[in-house]
Amino acid sequence: MTTNQTGRGAADYLLASKRCEILGLEQLLQMGQLVACISQLVHVLQLERGASNMFVGSGGERCADIRKAQIKKAGVAERKFRDYLSGMDIDCQCTSGDSRLLSRVAYALHALDELGEVRREINQLKAVPGTIIDGYSALIQSLLAIVYETADSAADPEVSRLLVAMFHLMQGKEVAGQERAVGSAGFAQGRFDRNFTQRLRRLIDSQERCFQIFLNFSDETYVEQWQAIADSPSSVALERLRRIAFTSVVDGQADRDLSDAWFALTSERIDAMKCIEEAIGSQLSALCRDKVEHARADLDSHRLHLDTLSRKADQPSFAVFFNGNAACAIDNRDNETFETGCAGPQLGRSLFDLVHTQSERLQSMAEELEAARAALAERKTIEKAKGLIMTSRRVSEDEAYRFLRHVAMTQNRRLSDVARDTLAMAELLPSH
Amino acid sequence: MTTNQTGRGAADYLLASKRCEILGLEQLLQMGQLVACISQLVHVLQLERGASNMFVGSGGERCADIRKAQIKKAGVAERKFRDYLSGMDIDCQCTSGDSRLLSRVAYALHALDELGEVRREINQLKAVPGTIIDGYSALIQSLLAIVYETADSAADPEVSRLLVAMFHLMQGKEVAGQERAVGSAGFAQGRFDRNFTQRLRRLIDSQERCFQIFLNFSDETYVEQWQAIADSPSSVALERLRRIAFTSVVDGQADRDLSDAWFALTSERIDAMKCIEEAIGSQLSALCRDKVEHARADLDSHRLHLDTLSRKADQPSFAVFFNGNAACAIDNRDNETFETGCAGPQLGRSLFDLVHTQSERLQSMAEELEAARAALAERKTIEKAKGLIMTSRRVSEDEAYRFLRHVAMTQNRRLSDVARDTLAMAELLPSH
Repeated sequence: MTTNQTGRGAADYLLASKRCEILGLEQLLQMGQLVACISQLVHVLQLERGASNMFVGSGGERCADIRKAQIKKAGVAERKFRDYLSGMDIDCQCTSGDSRLLSRVAYALHALDELGEVRREINQLKAVPGTIIDGYSALIQSLLAIVYETADSAADPEVSRLLVAMFHLMQGKEVAGQERAVGSAGFAQGRFDRNFTQRLRRLIDSQERCFQIFLNFSDETYVEQWQAIADSPSSVALERLRRIAFTSVVDGQADRDLSDAWFALTSERIDAMKCIEEAIGSQLSALCRDKVEHARADLDSHRLHLDTLSRKADQPSFAVFFNGNAACAIDNRDNETFETGCAGPQLGRSLFDLVHTQSERLQSMAEELEAARAALAERKTIEKAKGLIMTSRRVSEDEAYRFLRHVAMTQNRRLSDVARDTLAMAELLPSH
Repeated sequence: MTTNQTGRGAADYLLASKRCEILGLEQLLQMGQLVACISQLVHVLQLERGASNMFVGSGGERCADIRKAQIKKAGVAERKFRDYLSGMDIDCQCTSGDSRLLSRVAYALHALDELGEVRREINQLKAVPGTIIDGYSALIQSLLAIVYETADSAADPEVSRLLVAMFHLMQGKEVAGQERAVGSAGFAQGRFDRNFTQRLRRLIDSQERCFQIFLNFSDETYVEQWQAIADSPSSVALERLRRIAFTSVVDGQADRDLSDAWFALTSERIDAMKCIEEAIGSQLSALCRDKVEHARADLDSHRLHLDTLSRKADQPSFAVFFNGNAACAIDNRDNETFETGCAGPQLGRSLFDLVHTQSERLQSMAEELEAARAALAERKTIEKAKGLIMTSRRVSEDEAYRFLRHVAMTQNRRLSDVARDTLAMAELLPSH
């Protein structure tokens, strides 16, 4: 090594930095597989939610067999999820991101633990439909929160983008599932009252926001797959049913027989989303594997290179860093006018180049990550603003959302900007 | 435990999440001590830079002894820094933040490795003053970049705030050191030309920006200590000398004898800053120790609590999470209207409460962190915009800064907002 000192030198920290990166990527690979497990578990829970609701709603007459089959499938998916978790080394993970992730896992497992008891209550027709929907939805949200956390803590920008896309697709799909439930209930009643349509409208808007972010962070393949869903005859048919639902408030009624068509169309759409989720899941694993391999090869080549350098270490050391050559690598300078090109003797140069490249690469990765994290933060901002309006104005979530949306539309601004200003304003106002 | 399944349960992940937090805090404690080492090393290097400059500038006549003494002190501080680093376990650290941190360390060590060679060149009067200033400044920046990274990757909001304050104080002090050098040279020449005053102005502005952020993130104690410096007679005298420097462009000359007074006043100010740095360093260690202790006690009480719960595990399990009780804990929901209070049977409640509290606390910590990180990101934005203007307009750093400042003043906007827009605009424009 070129260090003239005892103890660890620059090269040791360079290699440690590389090893860190590899460990981070290996963790990401695990996370990707965990997300795939969650995608599957959420899907079957969504179906179980629907069947359980029908079962209880019909006084135990409908969906008994379907529900039994779904519970079995959910059991398989839950087992896989738990097994995968148990295979993870939770003692090695030692950062704040992981600390949040682990607490999300604890949360979701706690929710899963209660599922058995809830199923027994449903068997005995003790639970009411509203409670079932809310309970299953809370459980599903606790699982999606894990996916959110993996996206937020991923250190690789490419993987993070994919996870952000995946999270928003999963979230959009979950909202689509709720639209299915609300619509089914509405058509079954033969009429949508204002409450129903308000909820429907929010669910549709919320889906669109999710899917927009999904598309922004997606590869072209998925954008095309998505477009194929959007352009399908089923989508036209679904839009028609949505219109009927909305106009039924004025017209006074909707055809009850449309309930089955609605359920079939929305289910088809949800299944198509699940296909894209699976494709993203596979790509996620492939991408992480690729990156781990790449980083390992990089580490090996660094080691080799540094060995060669250390065998030449009896040559005189050169001051590459000084003489201004290093200046271009320092991004937080606020002070000097550096104007030198980076030329210097070969030996020092080599170690300097390696260190420099690693620093620059990590820095630009950190900057790229910002974009993906901003999309996640935006989501939080809207949710927080909505919560604030709900508390301060004592209104429902639908009304809070309508208020935000109204301001955004009349001021011709983005929803997230209005949400941010709402929160900023609240800090200025006295609390009550 | 309340889990009905084999494998790890919710309680295990809750404890793992706590352990994670403790590990993160222990790392922060190390980081705080590393930052204290860096503060000391930077300080002696700043003094060595000044003495080396004088030594070479006077053809080896001035400051030879002072320089020798400073080099000795620098050796001690460097040894301490390296020893501290070598005592750190770099294999356990496995996250992206650490990967960046380690690469910054590699960078700084590489710069330090070359210091010996540079000193020999200075001994032989082979180096020119400009190169010496730029070289030492680059070395100091590489050390400050480590502090920046610790502030950026700290997971505890309180510690992060203190590190952000520390970084900006250190950075401001470094810029104050450069102002000292530029002013000394100007007074020694007996005149400040437009180049000199431009640079001086940027250095003063840059300091003020740093100190403002330092104050925003500081405890009252430091704000008071800072105010004492600002209100001192020395500050009045310094402002007077600054004015003389600026008006000398018009007047045509400045009293050469003021050079010594300038040097004494600026040095006194810098030493006062160093005192605050040391106080922050001590507080940082105390704070981290306190937090580690707290977290450990918390973990112990959790363990005890969970043991009690598991001994009661033969009691029936209760569905606390379902029945809507868990709803209030889910922050990424976009879908349900939960309106239940969180009441439920005692046993389930206890584990649920622990998990819930941990999730909520980590979430709100993550949100608080944003503010501190935003201050760091702002700094990066201004630097990047300046760099962009330098490249695209082929102007010096001073001119780029003046341009940004001019736009901000004429549009009555914050410098960082103008910088952000500059970068956003550049993405829209074709590259050249």
